[in-house]
Amino acid sequence: MAYFNGINRIQFEGRDTDNPLAFRHYDPKQVVLGKTMEEHLRFAAAYWHTFTADGSDPFGKGTAVRPWDRFSGMDLAKARVEANFEFLEKLDLPFFCFHDRDIAPEGDTLQETNRNLDEIVALLKDGMKSSGRRLLWNTANMFSNPRFTHGAGTAPSADVFAYAAAQVKKGLEVGKELGAENYVFWGGREGYETLLNTDMGFELDNLARLYRMAIDYAGEIGFDAQFLIEPKPKEPSKHQYDFDAATTLAFLQKYGMQDRFKLNLEANHATLAGHTFEHEIRVAAINGALGSLDANQGDLLLGWDTDEFPTDLYATTLTMYEVLKAGGLGRGGVNFDAKVRRGSYELDDLFIAHIAGMDSFAWGLKAAAKLIEDRVIDGIVEERYATFKQGIGADIVSGKATLASLEQYALQNNPMNNRSGRLEQIKAKLNEVIYRV
Amino acid sequence: MAYFNGINRIQFEGRDTDNPLAFRHYDPKQVVLGKTMEEHLRFAAAYWHTFTADGSDPFGKGTAVRPWDRFSGMDLAKARVEANFEFLEKLDLPFFCFHDRDIAPEGDTLQETNRNLDEIVALLKDGMKSSGRRLLWNTANMFSNPRFTHGAGTAPSADVFAYAAAQVKKGLEVGKELGAENYVFWGGREGYETLLNTDMGFELDNLARLYRMAIDYAGEIGFDAQFLIEPKPKEPSKHQYDFDAATTLAFLQKYGMQDRFKLNLEANHATLAGHTFEHEIRVAAINGALGSLDANQGDLLLGWDTDEFPTDLYATTLTMYEVLKAGGLGRGGVNFDAKVRRGSYELDDLFIAHIAGMDSFAWGLKAAAKLIEDRVIDGIVEERYATFKQGIGADIVSGKATLASLEQYALQNNPMNNRSGRLEQIKAKLNEVIYRV
Amino acid sequence: MAYFNGINRIQFEGRDTDNPLAFRHYDPKQVVLGKTMEEHLRFAAAYWHTFTADGSDPFGKGTAVRPWDRFSGMDLAKARVEANFEFLEKLDLPFFCFHDRDIAPEGDTLQETNRNLDEIVALLKDGMKSSGRRLLWNTANMFSNPRFTHGAGTAPSADVFAYAAAQVKKGLEVGKELGAENYVFWGGREGYETLLNTDMGFELDNLARLYRMAIDYAGEIGFDAQFLIEPKPKEPSKHQYDFDAATTLAFLQKYGMQDRFKLNLEANHATLAGHTFEHEIRVAAINGALGSLDANQGDLLLGWDTDEFPTDLYATTLTMYEVLKAGGLGRGGVNFDAKVRRGSYELDDLFIAHIAGMDSFAWGLKAAAKLIEDRVIDGIVEERYATFKQGIGADIVSGKATLASLEQYALQNNPMNNRSGRLEQIKAKLNEVIYRV
Amino acid sequence: MAYFNGINRIQFEGRDTDNPLAFRHYDPKQVVLGKTMEEHLRFAAAYWHTFTADGSDPFGKGTAVRPWDRFSGMDLAKARVEANFEFLEKLDLPFFCFHDRDIAPEGDTLQETNRNLDEIVALLKDGMKSSGRRLLWNTANMFSNPRFTHGAGTAPSADVFAYAAAQVKKGLEVGKELGAENYVFWGGREGYETLLNTDMGFELDNLARLYRMAIDYAGEIGFDAQFLIEPKPKEPSKHQYDFDAATTLAFLQKYGMQDRFKLNLEANHATLAGHTFEHEIRVAAINGALGSLDANQGDLLLGWDTDEFPTDLYATTLTMYEVLKAGGLGRGGVNFDAKVRRGSYELDDLFIAHIAGMDSFAWGLKAAAKLIEDRVIDGIVEERYATFKQGIGADIVSGKATLASLEQYALQNNPMNNRSGRLEQIKAKLNEVIYRV
Repeated sequence: MAYFNGINRIQFEGRDTDNPLAFRHYDPKQVVLGKTMEEHLRFAAAYWHTFTADGSDPFGKGTAVRPWDRFSGMDLAKARVEANFEFLEKLDLPFFCFHDRDIAPEGDTLQETNRNLDEIVALLKDGMKSSGRRLLWNTANMFSNPRFTHGAGTAPSADVFAYAAAQVKKGLEVGKELGAENYVFWGGREGYETLLNTDMGFELDNLARLYRMAIDYAGEIGFDAQFLIEPKPKEPSKHQYDFDAATTLAFLQKYGMQDRFKLNLEANHATLAGHTFEHEIRVAAINGALGSLDANQGDLLLGWDTDEFPTDLYATTLTMYEVLKAGGLGRGGVNFDAKVRRGSYELDDLFIAHIAGMDSFAWGLKAAAKLIEDRVIDGIVEERYATFKQGIGADIVSGKATLASLEQYALQNNPMNNRSGRLEQIKAKLNEVIYRV
Repeated sequence: MAYFNGINRIQFEGRDTDNPLAFRHYDPKQVVLGKTMEEHLRFAAAYWHTFTADGSDPFGKGTAVRPWDRFSGMDLAKARVEANFEFLEKLDLPFFCFHDRDIAPEGDTLQETNRNLDEIVALLKDGMKSSGRRLLWNTANMFSNPRFTHGAGTAPSADVFAYAAAQVKKGLEVGKELGAENYVFWGGREGYETLLNTDMGFELDNLARLYRMAIDYAGEIGFDAQFLIEPKPKEPSKHQYDFDAATTLAFLQKYGMQDRFKLNLEANHATLAGHTFEHEIRVAAINGALGSLDANQGDLLLGWDTDEFPTDLYATTLTMYEVLKAGGLGRGGVNFDAKVRRGSYELDDLFIAHIAGMDSFAWGLKAAAKLIEDRVIDGIVEERYATFKQGIGADIVSGKATLASLEQYALQNNPMNNRSGRLEQIKAKLNEVIYRV
Repeated sequence: MAYFNGINRIQFEGRDTDNPLAFRHYDPKQVVLGKTMEEHLRFAAAYWHTFTADGSDPFGKGTAVRPWDRFSGMDLAKARVEANFEFLEKLDLPFFCFHDRDIAPEGDTLQETNRNLDEIVALLKDGMKSSGRRLLWNTANMFSNPRFTHGAGTAPSADVFAYAAAQVKKGLEVGKELGAENYVFWGGREGYETLLNTDMGFELDNLARLYRMAIDYAGEIGFDAQFLIEPKPKEPSKHQYDFDAATTLAFLQKYGMQDRFKLNLEANHATLAGHTFEHEIRVAAINGALGSLDANQGDLLLGWDTDEFPTDLYATTLTMYEVLKAGGLGRGGVNFDAKVRRGSYELDDLFIAHIAGMDSFAWGLKAAAKLIEDRVIDGIVEERYATFKQGIGADIVSGKATLASLEQYALQNNPMNNRSGRLEQIKAKLNEVIYRV
Repeated sequence: MAYFNGINRIQFEGRDTDNPLAFRHYDPKQVVLGKTMEEHLRFAAAYWHTFTADGSDPFGKGTAVRPWDRFSGMDLAKARVEANFEFLEKLDLPFFCFHDRDIAPEGDTLQETNRNLDEIVALLKDGMKSSGRRLLWNTANMFSNPRFTHGAGTAPSADVFAYAAAQVKKGLEVGKELGAENYVFWGGREGYETLLNTDMGFELDNLARLYRMAIDYAGEIGFDAQFLIEPKPKEPSKHQYDFDAATTLAFLQKYGMQDRFKLNLEANHATLAGHTFEHEIRVAAINGALGSLDANQGDLLLGWDTDEFPTDLYATTLTMYEVLKAGGLGRGGVNFDAKVRRGSYELDDLFIAHIAGMDSFAWGLKAAAKLIEDRVIDGIVEERYATFKQGIGADIVSGKATLASLEQYALQNNPMNNRSGRLEQIKAKLNEVIYRV
């Protein structure tokens, strides 16, 4: 526990302490709608943004000042393991998530790479045992290495596909070893740069093949994690196959795998696809596919994945409203797939940003619970669709109505039932609920 | 046949004639890849943009100067029928398309509305017979009337649903009467303004119910047109359920209707969803769902549906390439769902714009045929995926490979097969093909 | 005063009353930073959205149900005048704004149009006198009539320019007659559809000519209103010359008119240009050009001008912060250039929406005042730029430093002074201020 | 001359040669509108994309395979110098451009950094002499190093400002030493992440101070290059001060420097700002500020700076049309600020991409010349604005008209002169000119 104490003291709102929890407003033990807030929220730290990223961007080198910067190679990887558990404890975060390449460096061969991975996984297992922290999900990074330039499961090269398959196999083994709650697929290079050199149909068939092999292998080794696909429309690829929730569901249905996969939804990926986060959650929920959340926010005036820490209370409220209405996150959680800004390069910023994110989600959860308890939205919705409860409406729902019977009804029914949608009133009400929570 | 002759003479490139075909470069009888160009292209005029629209926009009144402006009510509707056939003939267009409300005015009651419709449909039938022109598709306008403010098949009111059902019933009857090749559903108000007052799951169930009723009724009356859904992500609604091809396919699969519907894809709708038109066509094609095309183009620096006439030869070439690779348009066609600019308000502009669109698509067809004949793209693609034809690649495709067998392969295979995607070279080649066609 | 009483009773949050102010949270008389809130905010109703618009959009007819719908022509115009004052009173709004064509219908000739205008202006004058309500600004609508298809002050036709000039002349006279605080120019068609038929340099010279004539004529008749230009980047035109604040300032500087014009800034226009509203206000403020505000909000996932009522408290807080730091709105005000959604077509919605907007701005004003009183932002900024207060920093500011002297300094100064920007901390603090106000 | 020969042979369209010019269509010596094409186009290679970049992106490591990869430090820098001249010669490119940090590595101190620079500059000088290649422009990279996280000339730290000043001083000296035609300022970090910690007015004053110091120092040392500012709206910063051409002109006018700076315009920066490239060029041209071009293209469905090689003939034609109408590029040129795609990582791609870019611009130049020679656009424009040549139109232009005189005219003039803008016809004509050139 040497990475954060002594080296750095958290300064926040004029106070100076080495206990960042002193600044947290959120009370994890508070009960909301029958469960503690921490049971609802299941917060996780993202290994890549927090322990691996350095603040670099396409126009500049890394800015982050980190105590583990003095190490390299496997020593660096080990230092990060220690920092991870220290960080989770200091911030009272129950979970973490990683890509294979976040936790251990690649070697010259796949054999060496896997040995590196094994060594770190053993350390993580010890750390989890002693700290009580858990793995929300792990995944395989099949987008950073140059071999994946043209894709992994959708690569035009069988060699690359085979390499990806080997990496997924190892990932499943690592997940099992660490008792991961979920296993995630995010296909940053599973897509195309131009249709002119791409056989999209074949590539999607191959992706389905890879997923089937993964299902089979997980069964074989008894790894029972929930499988998740994470949609994103673009970046790094020009077009990514898992564009959004609906596109991913179309893929899963086509290949008959809708029962084996749920979705890991990310706020900023939603906005890049032209959707709100709550839209993506609703789409998943009505298809029984809500898996887990990557919590962050984008800048809608910028066209790339900014992965900002979530602080917009409208967004967190509507997110948690959808989650609550969908019955909660189950084995999923709220993973802070968010990075401190390049200009927020000091160690303090890591703590402050996570606290800001947790407090914003906690506030959102409370506001959402109030919306539900007061039946603010349910009341509106029930009243709005009331005509489907009886008469011709009930006939439509039951399947009894036909075009002919409905025409008969319509020919005699003039003027008809309709009313204002009251959008402005709902927004005013939302303001009241959020501010007064 | 008095609407265009005498009143107006087409001026184009300094010439002055009453025969617009004098300016057309496209030769409909030219044979390309074994069929005449007109058999490939199946051009249609869009009744709404050409005979009903007036150039108005949200900030200004109509500007269009049309010879039928002097009429109103049913007289106006009848004048437009005559103008339609005269226009199709003068431009040598084999098809036309319409919404029910384009061709006849609504009455005070549904009964009267339907009578108006019947009267015009009879005139259209006569006109089709005498002119030999055909109906590519018809559809019901369930978005303009205030009753559809909150949706039609997805309305929160059973009365509105019933009215929509009655309208679809009549639309199917009209389609049968006129021998329509296709029947289209475009749901401009089938979506939501805010999730906060919307039961998305229920609304989608209802939409599926409406589609099933339509399938049943079409069967009942023996209307064998191809059914098409037209995706659009937004506008007029904030979010529309048929966001894009993939989303629509997810819907059709969920409700088990993928065998009964294909897609009517529109270029500008694709760009509003963040896709190229060729992407949408490819998605449809690999799912056996390519139905018909609404030909137009958007302005990617503007965020609304500009519906410009298609003149970009890159776009028309890549569109026709996808169509040819997918085996052609079948019962579909190329419908000019495009409007002359507000500032192009003279009658001449209607002719010039359609000629520009036809010539651009014809040019694109010829360039696409050359790409195929010279195997420009097929050659690239075949070579690129060659490793899947044998060895480990063939094992992946056949289903013989497992994660374990692929890991074995990957552990012994270093470095691996990969090569440049050559995007810049392909683009240079594309320029050569397009310009030299 | 018969338009709202009796016909309609406001229903809001389960209560039912004919006094909408019963639902208002905002207290106009509350003193904030030395002035009453109503002195700070100077709210205005927008005649066009509130009394003229009908909820139509490019895909559908009007939905609004209004008590003055039963009138037409000049009777309708007169009814709207009465409704305007009744509405302002019922909502305690001190100001209103209009375009010439909002208040009176065009006649067959300009003479008749002007007579219509005169008749209504006389009624407005009486109404203002008896009600104590005032005109925040008026303007000339030079974009709706077909004659302005290609522009007004930038039209390619001298006849159209002359007509626009006549309309501006009348507008200035009307403004003087009614004691308008400001006179606004918004050039919805002052731009181009394509550069290929446009002489941009000439058109901008002409626009400057029109503005100079207006300045001269206002001087001649003793109309001392503040002149405002309202930037918007696009819609209805493909490109509009007054793209954003900076572009408009470039124009004013080039033609030497920066002392005679300030800016009327609109939130949704800012977002269409890729800016936040606070950015536009800051740009205006540091150039001494902050004039007045059009208060609304857009939907950043949609690409057109949605003109929603402002309810986002982050936006209203940051807006009012910029206004307060700039020294207030002076003769400007906060004009609700916002429209109820098409689906919010009942009369109640008009009241509810304005109350929601007022309360949101009032809340934002209080939060902004707290940010200033607590020196939340000022403190951060002062500390951040502290190195410019002395030494080499002071030399830079005073103009004493040169590249050579700075190089000398830099060569000896390693490492250098830099620190985290603390963006996440600032956002957390902002949440605290907004939600606890 | 060892970097490209022997190691690699260019494969393009099935042919295999070590002379890439064998594939070039463009003939530099062809005379167009009185000058050779190479005199018009003045092509330059961009050192950063071609010799320094490695294909990395925010989600993956570099992919580029380059013969100089085996070197590091100053040896690498020297290898790149040789590669540069070999490349320019092999591709017959007359110019190159660089940032200081592209050509030589930073040392531990500014002194060492400058020594590194001096050593490479001497090599470049020799290479220029022996090869006859010239420096189109140089610039200082004041965005990559972490010290510039918060800006350079607009940094909140005086130390950072001083460092930037030292770097500019050195840059001017280097430019003079190498006889640069232009000196460029691009401010990737001159902007803000949030207004909440930013004193925009002060930062812009400082930026003006830095520019003035640069002007003074250039005068002092007799460096007579043309000074250029390169606008970009965002990326890497959330908002950049030099948003677009108009914003930059507003800045220059405000600080009285419009006579000392012209603009270096980039196509992809234009699209990020919501403009076409031809718009930005026109804005610069009518303000006497057209300096030089960064030739590339973006993907309008993606929201970041993709810097693709320019291959769209519509864009190159309209670009060269604007350039020709503005009187040519003067001391500026066409710099390929473009990068091969990450997947185009082979050495051949560098050559192929530059040839594709050159040929596309050459084609565009010829099409633009034809537009001018045939008076296609000039004819349209002249006819369109003809009413301003006499009568009331001439009075408007001469300044003789007033609002009153124009009102007199308008009152008697009904209906008025107006005509179709013929946008569709112009686009059809454009297709003919581009494809038949």
